[in-house]
Amino acid sequence: MTDARLRLPAEVLSEWLSEDAGYFLSAGRLLEAGTSRWQHYEVWDTPRFGRLFRLDGCFMSSERDEFHYHENLVHVPAMAHEGVRQALIIGGGDGGSAEELLKYPTIERVVIVELDEKVVDLSRRYLQGIHHGALDDARVDLRIGDGLRYVTVDGPAAAAGYDLIVLDLTDPVGLAEALYGEDFFRACRALLADGGALSLHLGAPAFQPERVQALVRRLRRVFACVRPYFLHIPLYGSLWGLATASDRLDPLALAAEEIDRRIMERRIGELQHYNGAVHHAQFALPNHLRALLA
Amino acid sequence: MTDARLRLPAEVLSEWLSEDAGYFLSAGRLLEAGTSRWQHYEVWDTPRFGRLFRLDGCFMSSERDEFHYHENLVHVPAMAHEGVRQALIIGGGDGGSAEELLKYPTIERVVIVELDEKVVDLSRRYLQGIHHGALDDARVDLRIGDGLRYVTVDGPAAAAGYDLIVLDLTDPVGLAEALYGEDFFRACRALLADGGALSLHLGAPAFQPERVQALVRRLRRVFACVRPYFLHIPLYGSLWGLATASDRLDPLALAAEEIDRRIMERRIGELQHYNGAVHHAQFALPNHLRALLA
Repeated sequence: MTDARLRLPAEVLSEWLSEDAGYFLSAGRLLEAGTSRWQHYEVWDTPRFGRLFRLDGCFMSSERDEFHYHENLVHVPAMAHEGVRQALIIGGGDGGSAEELLKYPTIERVVIVELDEKVVDLSRRYLQGIHHGALDDARVDLRIGDGLRYVTVDGPAAAAGYDLIVLDLTDPVGLAEALYGEDFFRACRALLADGGALSLHLGAPAFQPERVQALVRRLRRVFACVRPYFLHIPLYGSLWGLATASDRLDPLALAAEEIDRRIMERRIGELQHYNGAVHHAQFALPNHLRALLA
Repeated sequence: MTDARLRLPAEVLSEWLSEDAGYFLSAGRLLEAGTSRWQHYEVWDTPRFGRLFRLDGCFMSSERDEFHYHENLVHVPAMAHEGVRQALIIGGGDGGSAEELLKYPTIERVVIVELDEKVVDLSRRYLQGIHHGALDDARVDLRIGDGLRYVTVDGPAAAAGYDLIVLDLTDPVGLAEALYGEDFFRACRALLADGGALSLHLGAPAFQPERVQALVRRLRRVFACVRPYFLHIPLYGSLWGLATASDRLDPLALAAEEIDRRIMERRIGELQHYNGAVHHAQFALPNHLRALLA
C-alpha cells in the first residue's frame, strides 16, 4: 500500500492505522527493495529502529523494537505451558518468534512455514539482530510453503501434536486473510497437542476495533479459552492486541510470581519487556475494551 | 512547532514524538485558529477524534479520546485517597480534569489556575464534550494566571492544604518548563494537605526516555513515594507516562477489588477506561522501563 492520500517526501516512511490516522518514521537508508512472487519488500536502516523490514508498505519488524512483539507473542503462552517441546510458526520468516522459542530448554523442534522465500533470504542477509541465527538452528525445520496447506494437509499427515502454534503473520487482509478464518483456526486446533495453545496478533483496538472484535469472536467459536491481551508496540504505532487461544491452557491461571519463577527456572535469559507482572497486566482491559470484547 | 521537516498537505495534522518519528491525523475542518498572548491555538473538527484542540502544534485534547488521559491523571491518585475535598489544577483549561474531580461526592472546591484565558474561552465555545460544563460548576474556582506564581505566592498565602494537585500542562519545554522543576515540585509539596498527592504526565518513554527518566528522578528527590504508570493514549501517538508523587499516598497500597468497591461507593458513574484492574496494571513495568526508571 503506498500512501496516495499523504504525499510524504522520500525521506519519511509512513503507514496508516485507519483511514484517518497513521504514523511515520525518518527513513534513513534503503538497503534493498523489490517485489517477490508474493509481495513488495523493503529493508531500511533507520535512525530510530535500526534495520527495519516492510512488506507491502506495512512495518513488520525492526531490530531495536521487535522484542515488544516477539517476546509477548511467544512467552505469554509458552511460559504458561508446562513445557513446550514441539512448536509451529506460520509466517515468522524474520526468525524473531523462533529465537524466543529456542530459549526454552524443553524445546525439541520448531517448524517454520513461511510463504515467501525472499523474506527468509532478506532475514539471513539483513536481520541478524532479530533472529540471532535462529533460522539456522538445528532444532528449526524451516519450510517454504503455504501455511494454509501445511495446517490442513501436511501437518495432519505428519500426525504431530504441537504444544504451541504461533501465527506470526501479516495483517488479516489480502495475502494472509484465509489464515485468520474460522476454518483455519479449527484446523490449527486439530494440530494442537493436549494442553497446547495458539497465539496470534489481532490489530490495533483504537484504530481497528471491528477487526479485533471479529477475531476474538471467531476464536471463541473454536476454542474454550480465548485470552486477548494488549501492549504498546512502537513500530506498529499503537496499542496492539495479541491473544492466546486454547481448550485448556489459560495464561491467567498462573500468578505473576510463578511466571517470574519459571523465567528463572527455565533459564530464559535476558528479556527486554516480558516479566511476570507484565504478563498479567497485559490482560487487564480498560472499560471500553471490556465492552468491545464482551 | 510547525512541521518543517515533513511537508504535509494541508488536510493532515501531524506531530513529531522524537526527531525521527511521529504521527498524523486527517484534519477535517478548522473551526478557529490564532495566536493568544502565550501560544498558537487551533480547534479542529476531525473525523477520528471529533473536536480537537492543539497548542503550538501539539495535540492537547479531543472529545472522543480525552478519557484516556483525564480519567487516569485524576482517578489513580483520587481513588487511592480517603476522600479528596480540596483540589488544585495547574493548567487544565479544557476542563477535562475538573470534570473528573467533580465526580467525587467529597469534593468541595477545585481551583483551576490556567495561564491562557483564550484556552478557557475556546473550551467554553467548542469543547463542551470534554468539560461537560465543569468550568462553570459552583465548586470550581477558575483563575487566569501563572501557576508558578500561584503555587509559590498566592497558594501559601491562602494557607489551604490541597488533597490533590494535578499538573495538567503542556510538555516540559518552553512555556511550561519551570512547572516541572525541582523547586516547583517542592512548592507543590508544601501546598499539599497531609496524605495529599501530586499527579502529572511524564511524556512518551519509547520516544522521550531521557525526559521521562529525568522527571521521575526529580520527583524522587522531593517526594517519598513516586509511582510512574503508563497507558497508551491514541491522541498522543504512543504509550504515555503519568505519575503520582506524595509523601504518604501510595496508589499501590489498595487492591484492585478495593478500587472497584470505591468506584461504586463513591458513585463515580460511567468511566470509559479506568477500573480496579487497570489501576494496578498500569504500574506493571516492562523490563526496559524498570531499567530506565531504576
